[in-house]
Amino acid sequence: MARLSPVPHDRVQIDDAFWAPRQEVNRKATLPGVFKHLKATGRYDAFKLKWKPGKPNPPHKFWDSDVAKWLEAVGFSLATHPDRKLQRLADRLIDDIEKAQQKDGYLNVHYTVVEPELRWKNLRDNHELYCAGHLMEAAVAYHDATGKRKLLDVLCRYADYIDRVFGRGKGQLRGYPGHEEIELALMKLARATGENRYAELARFFVDERGRQPHYYDIEARARGEQPDPHRGSGITAYDYNQSHLPVREQTTVEGHAVRATYLYSGMADVAMETGDKSLLKALRKLWDNCAGRRMYVTGGIGSTRFGERFTFDYDLPNESAYAETCAAIGLVFWAHRMLHLDPDGRYADVMERSLYNGVLSGVSLDGTHFFYVNPLAFHPEAAQKNPALHQRAAGGRQGWFGCACCPPNVARLIASLGGYAYSQSGTEARVHLYIRGRAKLEVAGQAVEIVQKTDYPWTEKVRLAVRPERPSTFTLSLRIPGWCRSARLRVNGKSVRLAPIVKKGYAAIRREWKRGDRVELTLPMPVERVEAHPEVRMDCGRVALTRGPVVYCLEEADNGPRLSDLVLKRGAKLTARREKDLLGDVVVIRGKALRRREDEWKSEGLYRPADSKTETVPIRAVPYSTWANRKLGEMVVWIGNGG
Amino acid sequence: MARLSPVPHDRVQIDDAFWAPRQEVNRKATLPGVFKHLKATGRYDAFKLKWKPGKPNPPHKFWDSDVAKWLEAVGFSLATHPDRKLQRLADRLIDDIEKAQQKDGYLNVHYTVVEPELRWKNLRDNHELYCAGHLMEAAVAYHDATGKRKLLDVLCRYADYIDRVFGRGKGQLRGYPGHEEIELALMKLARATGENRYAELARFFVDERGRQPHYYDIEARARGEQPDPHRGSGITAYDYNQSHLPVREQTTVEGHAVRATYLYSGMADVAMETGDKSLLKALRKLWDNCAGRRMYVTGGIGSTRFGERFTFDYDLPNESAYAETCAAIGLVFWAHRMLHLDPDGRYADVMERSLYNGVLSGVSLDGTHFFYVNPLAFHPEAAQKNPALHQRAAGGRQGWFGCACCPPNVARLIASLGGYAYSQSGTEARVHLYIRGRAKLEVAGQAVEIVQKTDYPWTEKVRLAVRPERPSTFTLSLRIPGWCRSARLRVNGKSVRLAPIVKKGYAAIRREWKRGDRVELTLPMPVERVEAHPEVRMDCGRVALTRGPVVYCLEEADNGPRLSDLVLKRGAKLTARREKDLLGDVVVIRGKALRRREDEWKSEGLYRPADSKTETVPIRAVPYSTWANRKLGEMVVWIGNGG
Repeated sequence: MARLSPVPHDRVQIDDAFWAPRQEVNRKATLPGVFKHLKATGRYDAFKLKWKPGKPNPPHKFWDSDVAKWLEAVGFSLATHPDRKLQRLADRLIDDIEKAQQKDGYLNVHYTVVEPELRWKNLRDNHELYCAGHLMEAAVAYHDATGKRKLLDVLCRYADYIDRVFGRGKGQLRGYPGHEEIELALMKLARATGENRYAELARFFVDERGRQPHYYDIEARARGEQPDPHRGSGITAYDYNQSHLPVREQTTVEGHAVRATYLYSGMADVAMETGDKSLLKALRKLWDNCAGRRMYVTGGIGSTRFGERFTFDYDLPNESAYAETCAAIGLVFWAHRMLHLDPDGRYADVMERSLYNGVLSGVSLDGTHFFYVNPLAFHPEAAQKNPALHQRAAGGRQGWFGCACCPPNVARLIASLGGYAYSQSGTEARVHLYIRGRAKLEVAGQAVEIVQKTDYPWTEKVRLAVRPERPSTFTLSLRIPGWCRSARLRVNGKSVRLAPIVKKGYAAIRREWKRGDRVELTLPMPVERVEAHPEVRMDCGRVALTRGPVVYCLEEADNGPRLSDLVLKRGAKLTARREKDLLGDVVVIRGKALRRREDEWKSEGLYRPADSKTETVPIRAVPYSTWANRKLGEMVVWIGNGG
Repeated sequence: MARLSPVPHDRVQIDDAFWAPRQEVNRKATLPGVFKHLKATGRYDAFKLKWKPGKPNPPHKFWDSDVAKWLEAVGFSLATHPDRKLQRLADRLIDDIEKAQQKDGYLNVHYTVVEPELRWKNLRDNHELYCAGHLMEAAVAYHDATGKRKLLDVLCRYADYIDRVFGRGKGQLRGYPGHEEIELALMKLARATGENRYAELARFFVDERGRQPHYYDIEARARGEQPDPHRGSGITAYDYNQSHLPVREQTTVEGHAVRATYLYSGMADVAMETGDKSLLKALRKLWDNCAGRRMYVTGGIGSTRFGERFTFDYDLPNESAYAETCAAIGLVFWAHRMLHLDPDGRYADVMERSLYNGVLSGVSLDGTHFFYVNPLAFHPEAAQKNPALHQRAAGGRQGWFGCACCPPNVARLIASLGGYAYSQSGTEARVHLYIRGRAKLEVAGQAVEIVQKTDYPWTEKVRLAVRPERPSTFTLSLRIPGWCRSARLRVNGKSVRLAPIVKKGYAAIRREWKRGDRVELTLPMPVERVEAHPEVRMDCGRVALTRGPVVYCLEEADNGPRLSDLVLKRGAKLTARREKDLLGDVVVIRGKALRRREDEWKSEGLYRPADSKTETVPIRAVPYSTWANRKLGEMVVWIGNGG
């Protein structure tokens, strides 16, 4: 089978009512807004290397990555929507970056002006290789978008230097990053430049990770410190940064969730490049553990703010969920790579789940405020006053964060969203995401345009026009989402039985395609009450409402307070209705629930024999991704069920 | 009305099947066991002042209090059960304490040998006055029990010195303890010695607390530090140690729960002594807030391990509950004082709730292992791997703690338990707790013996014999517990209507009493499903099982794992049954519940449309106080309801 590869986002045009407005807000509000913060906080100008010891506001060790992610997002955006002003800001920055590069190729603001003596001395805690990776990704994206090579050349020189510093040769360091990222970035750089050494270096970082003797022990001793595997974790030695075992021996997703997904993405890239089956095998195990035991229904990951990390199987607390926006994004990266390494709709199901829910919740509808953490239940007073919860969520979305990873991360993902929708090979066109618009693929040696007409995710119909340049035989594979239990297909008006042609989540339609061919996929999307695995102790007796890929929540703005006390009547009707003026045009779910009457409780009573009367109240659920765009109040995803 | 006062525990003999075995274990296992740890850790010998700078194991700043509480417990125990060996250990220790006292009267191991230069320099964080208070309590108890004055004299000298150091005079410090305790201790010392200056000093500490300019600001500046009101709290300025406002302006229970209850107990003592109505008013408000909004159904308090503190109204998470054993004990102290300051059964209801549940859970049945924190739900893996939970509970009860406040605290409470059962005045004998045994009261100018025959808390009948020396008219007040909805009373075999004579939770039987009079109180104790106030979001859709004063829980040992998924059928029968061979003889509750069938779930599934089949399973609930005495596993107090 010919190898599938993603169709780049600049070949994909999105003009739907769901994502297109988000992309426009991303271009017009988020990218300029993030720039404003980068400028105001000193990040944008830090590459001028003007900071001197004793002056205030020293460049922080991961500032470079914030700027790089914004630059990458600008690159992605310019590829589909030229913008002279953004490009000028980017070019100016790239000039500074070029000048900030040291003679030997080294490039990191903090370790050039603040702590030059610590270069490469503490890979465990510092972020040099992480920052390098983000700059490489930016360079590739900017080059792809503009054809300008300056930043790409700078990063190649940096990569060449890193390749001299790290390795198994004499005098080289056998280390690897405490915060993974450079692995996947080097793979992008290798593909962009054709330089295989970069791919080899990525593989080196993957292969060295977690080996004994442990590099972080060695470098700690070299610093005159005792090895401290518990640093940042508090739980298990070195699992915080996924170096507790060689990567091929890891079977559970552990530690800091962003680091984890970036590592697994890099592993998938290396496996794709090298055909290494042992990596694929490890990745499948890790995936099963992540998606099957450690992922929120929103596609968020990371169960605790302590270490921003995974905890253990089925441990998915709602109110104290961390579910960092960056981690959901990392899960999309990983899923997208698995989708090519091991083609199977289950990866796309998770990718879609995260995109529509746990990623998108990270940014406000107006594109200027961000969630770092994405809890699945929220109580305003608790977020402020119970210190076990993360106060980053207490005031709702924030305009900026001292640790500012999430805003530019969500910006780069939304700007490049089209790149997650299609794949292509010599014999196949594959559709992963249903989004109105058009895409230009290369299949069977020619350009094939696919035009989608749909109001997904709000309505069930997806109409596709397939337009090869000339009649040609190839396979069109359409994803049948895991959430859909009764999909139907028509090709040129004729019903086609799905069962015989669906394999691993895709309906494969092999035929001679010619201009004018029409495919109609119907994906019925009733409102579903979803239950969690019985081991998820927090969700016992509760259900989440979903419709299609969209996970819903109840907000105080619609339903008043005391959301935890609402109980859906078993079997009671839940109806979906489009509300064009609500939250930028969404489908809401309406129904009825029971709630105990609070007026019966005397003010001093706290416990009493159970005999509360209940009252029936109407409920309105809104997409989880849109919560906290109105007056901040209570929110729950998991709702009492069975009253 | 003549003032009620507690009947001292040495006048009360307990010989029931519930508490008497606990007291015996306390004497025979806990007191010697705690001694062993005090000795092994250096605490017992620390008063010899042998420690020198540079040597290991420096005496910690609150070691004195651990030893003092043990000594107080020994005093309480000797008063009812002479024990030559324990007394010898105590006397030897008292000799050391006497020698450790400095010429000026100062007495604190840490600030004598480790940091002498810091004496009285940081009342906010250090524990000098706290340790002093515990030594005073020990001195009073030991003198009461043995008649020996040595320790009492030492502590009077220390109190005299403290009275010179603190005050509003020139050169005196207007400070007060960061950890309250000395207030209630000084009141005990005043009563034991008749020295009113000690009561005045207690009042001074209470009155100064939280005034502006804030003493902790002043002393911080004197140390050359910036005032740091957030220290130890992370939330609100100085509420961690209840100094955010003058005490009379405080309306909600805040901060570190042990400190809070010790303060409120001291305030109640001062109010009792001075008749200060403004203190009583504040205490009533604080009480309503605590018992009505911030107390677990077990009588535990303190919702989070962060600051070991209260959070906010109705915020009572179960798995991450702190509910420190010492805080439940502090609540008993406070309730017991309120019961005399403001006679009302609601205080006794809370006192009983804590004693039978949240206090008693703090010690194992064999008396040698202790819970510092008393969560209301427990999952073994979560306790180890989710860092939002307190790992102090992870391994079950522990033999000892580095911060060892709880073991000797529970020991002193159990040793003095009889002292909480009765009160007396010139005109009234009052029974708060129903425990088989006998008590010698002084009422109406003569000795009155009350004999209780009952199997409380397991059976509903309480038979009391009232034996005045000679026929005499007085009131016998019997507590009608708040949990009891259909109490019945007979006097000398004749039924008495309760409604006309019950006031504020007590049935007042005024008559001429003579030897041979018999009273029979029947307190029907059906199994109750108890619900929490609808604002307690964690307990929505769940009930706790109670019977009489006893709160029950489900343990994995009886019910298998996945306790969160059990749902009691609405209206289904729950039966109570005595099991003499279980957990030292308890009444268990048996019934049936529904549980989802886990075998239907494929190993990789995490979410799916809700259609799980359930199976009916038998359940057995055991008293919460006895959990974790068998193989450690899951535990829940709040059970799904309404399947």
